[in-house]
Amino acid sequence: MNNLDSYKGVRDFYPQDMNNLNYIIDNWKKTLKKFGYEEYNASILEPTELYEAKSSDEIVSEQTYNFIDRGDRRVTLRPEMTPTLSRMIAKKSKELSLPVRWFSVPNVFRYEQPQRGRLREHWQLNVDLLGLENKYGDSEIIQIAYEIMKDFGLNESDFVIRINNRKNINQMVKSLDLPPEKEKDFFKLLDKKDKMVDFNDEMFKLIGKPLNISMGPSEEIEKIFEILNKRGITNLVFDPYLVRGFDYYTGIVFEIYDTNSINKRAIFGGGRYDNLIGQFGSENISGIGFGMGDVTIQDVLEIRKLLPNKKNNIDVYICLFNEESSNYANQISNILRENEINTIIDYSFKRISNQIEKAVKKNSIFTIFIGEEEVKTQRIKIKNLNSGIEKKLKIRDLVKFVKKELSS
Amino acid sequence: MNNLDSYKGVRDFYPQDMNNLNYIIDNWKKTLKKFGYEEYNASILEPTELYEAKSSDEIVSEQTYNFIDRGDRRVTLRPEMTPTLSRMIAKKSKELSLPVRWFSVPNVFRYEQPQRGRLREHWQLNVDLLGLENKYGDSEIIQIAYEIMKDFGLNESDFVIRINNRKNINQMVKSLDLPPEKEKDFFKLLDKKDKMVDFNDEMFKLIGKPLNISMGPSEEIEKIFEILNKRGITNLVFDPYLVRGFDYYTGIVFEIYDTNSINKRAIFGGGRYDNLIGQFGSENISGIGFGMGDVTIQDVLEIRKLLPNKKNNIDVYICLFNEESSNYANQISNILRENEINTIIDYSFKRISNQIEKAVKKNSIFTIFIGEEEVKTQRIKIKNLNSGIEKKLKIRDLVKFVKKELSS
Repeated sequence: MNNLDSYKGVRDFYPQDMNNLNYIIDNWKKTLKKFGYEEYNASILEPTELYEAKSSDEIVSEQTYNFIDRGDRRVTLRPEMTPTLSRMIAKKSKELSLPVRWFSVPNVFRYEQPQRGRLREHWQLNVDLLGLENKYGDSEIIQIAYEIMKDFGLNESDFVIRINNRKNINQMVKSLDLPPEKEKDFFKLLDKKDKMVDFNDEMFKLIGKPLNISMGPSEEIEKIFEILNKRGITNLVFDPYLVRGFDYYTGIVFEIYDTNSINKRAIFGGGRYDNLIGQFGSENISGIGFGMGDVTIQDVLEIRKLLPNKKNNIDVYICLFNEESSNYANQISNILRENEINTIIDYSFKRISNQIEKAVKKNSIFTIFIGEEEVKTQRIKIKNLNSGIEKKLKIRDLVKFVKKELSS
Repeated sequence: MNNLDSYKGVRDFYPQDMNNLNYIIDNWKKTLKKFGYEEYNASILEPTELYEAKSSDEIVSEQTYNFIDRGDRRVTLRPEMTPTLSRMIAKKSKELSLPVRWFSVPNVFRYEQPQRGRLREHWQLNVDLLGLENKYGDSEIIQIAYEIMKDFGLNESDFVIRINNRKNINQMVKSLDLPPEKEKDFFKLLDKKDKMVDFNDEMFKLIGKPLNISMGPSEEIEKIFEILNKRGITNLVFDPYLVRGFDYYTGIVFEIYDTNSINKRAIFGGGRYDNLIGQFGSENISGIGFGMGDVTIQDVLEIRKLLPNKKNNIDVYICLFNEESSNYANQISNILRENEINTIIDYSFKRISNQIEKAVKKNSIFTIFIGEEEVKTQRIKIKNLNSGIEKKLKIRDLVKFVKKELSS
């Protein structure tokens, strides 16, 4: 095999890419933990039956990876996490103490044509609050979405939170008395509204009259605005046309929208689903949550230069003058590593200039040189490759010096 | 769908399980970073061609998940990480500065009958050092395997490191002049030696004479023992029968073996592979590495009670006397969360006794009570649920108090 590429539409994560992915995931986890949310996960392999009743049809029929295993079981690579969450909650509904605050960072799979921001596999933060069916539950989830953006370094002016209640639209659709397929098409069309130039025409074709959603925000939405305003969150907009993709939403839906003129688009969103968990045969439990993909947020952060662009994974690079120095170098490295200073020893025994070159290529911060003299005098020569500063230190002063320079 | 189980042979990770998995993965990452190793990853989806030449036949033909995608591509869920690593290294061999020190924690998939310690999906630390083909490279990888065990809290007496060189056995097998299929069977049999009662009989059947591997450790192995001994690693054993499963090993192979009498077994292992990356059409790069599964190490830690058994993800649980207190509670929670103190607010507005009960069920460490009086006096009543100690504090003393109690 001479094809060195990954499978179509998925990514290889070289260390630099991994630094970015880890930065995003670590940030997500940090914010969620502050709000007392607990992490869960599951396998990417799920029984296909899990999706047949719950997800929107398009996903199951056209956009999932399905296969039959060697034991004739129908298997699906999870396209989203909510059905898995519902299954897990329903299974332990007797033991779990509600409300449950959970998050997860699964990789999810969709079989679609790869394009900018839409890959076949991506990582997706999922946040859900189950069993708290009031405006404070709604507000908490929206607040968390807001806090995540702030914790990434974004300002309030960088994004706007659009809010609607699916109840309004669901009722309006009922009054149109459409056949079920047309009802699905209606939501699909509404979900794509911002990306279309001929939305009004297409909608007219579908429902036979102009679409008129002229209502103002309901009392429920006004109360949520009030709660969030008091928490300092003011970049809120009522959007009567907002539906979000999934069929299972029944109440509040929201969307975080990028206000940057070159990237105007929905970054992520979510909503309340009242009937999903009850479909698993257990008692009904109301939930609200959202999902947020790594690819989309990375775009947002890159455009605003908010990715740390961390180049460095190595603190200290030890160069050896000869093989005999390697024992002493190991004693030094033990001390550094015990203090969580990342340390490499160069065991190539090549010329020192060659070793220094390598240290620079690896973006190391410090080099240490160890040869006969260092072993004899028990003094370490250390150089900060960024500042160029060189020092000769006793071993006992080494850790303190490195830690101080690293934190400055 | 009323079946709430996960797919056969894989696991759901409820928060408690997730705490354990995260503990193991975080420990792995911490140790590897200390040694200056950089993290990489890739998708679980790989072109099937990747495995056909490289892995042992059994894995490709019987033990992998293969399917055809909607675009007629043959896809495999990765059964191991080394072929992916080789592909990635080969692809960037011109840019990468050797040696490369990389690690990854992929989930890998094998279609086999689920049994204790053998699941269809597990997480597996992969550690590889590429482009350093000397005894110091061998020693560093074995040292890291040792350090991981120590960092999990294991003692030297808890495990032994078996070492061999595949060169010896590979030569011996050549001298037997077996046909290729029998050669494969020979290695398979040798790999299962410890689990068999009739090994000698089976081997006699295969090679037509008694197997006699009577050689002592080579000079190379003795040198590695010497290097590792000087680094304080003495639980080393030469094992002339050790082969490890994969076909691609060409040099040093090693295995970490549990010495606990009720769990005597190989925990993990690895070895040197000289010809793998060259098969991808780029220049040849020698590598040495190992893989370590989460299920096996969790067993080892559980038996020795070395899992932290962390029950708690919530530091502070705020109980509200009424809806009007929720704004003030949010101000308090902001301060706590800014200081990375995990905080939940109970928005149920149920009786306080009910809220306290919930705080206890969620294993929270502190409860805070907020009602009219607290809003008026700006004094917070906080209770440590573990010690029972109650305090009334000014807001500015709250963070200090919680942090102090949490760290004690």
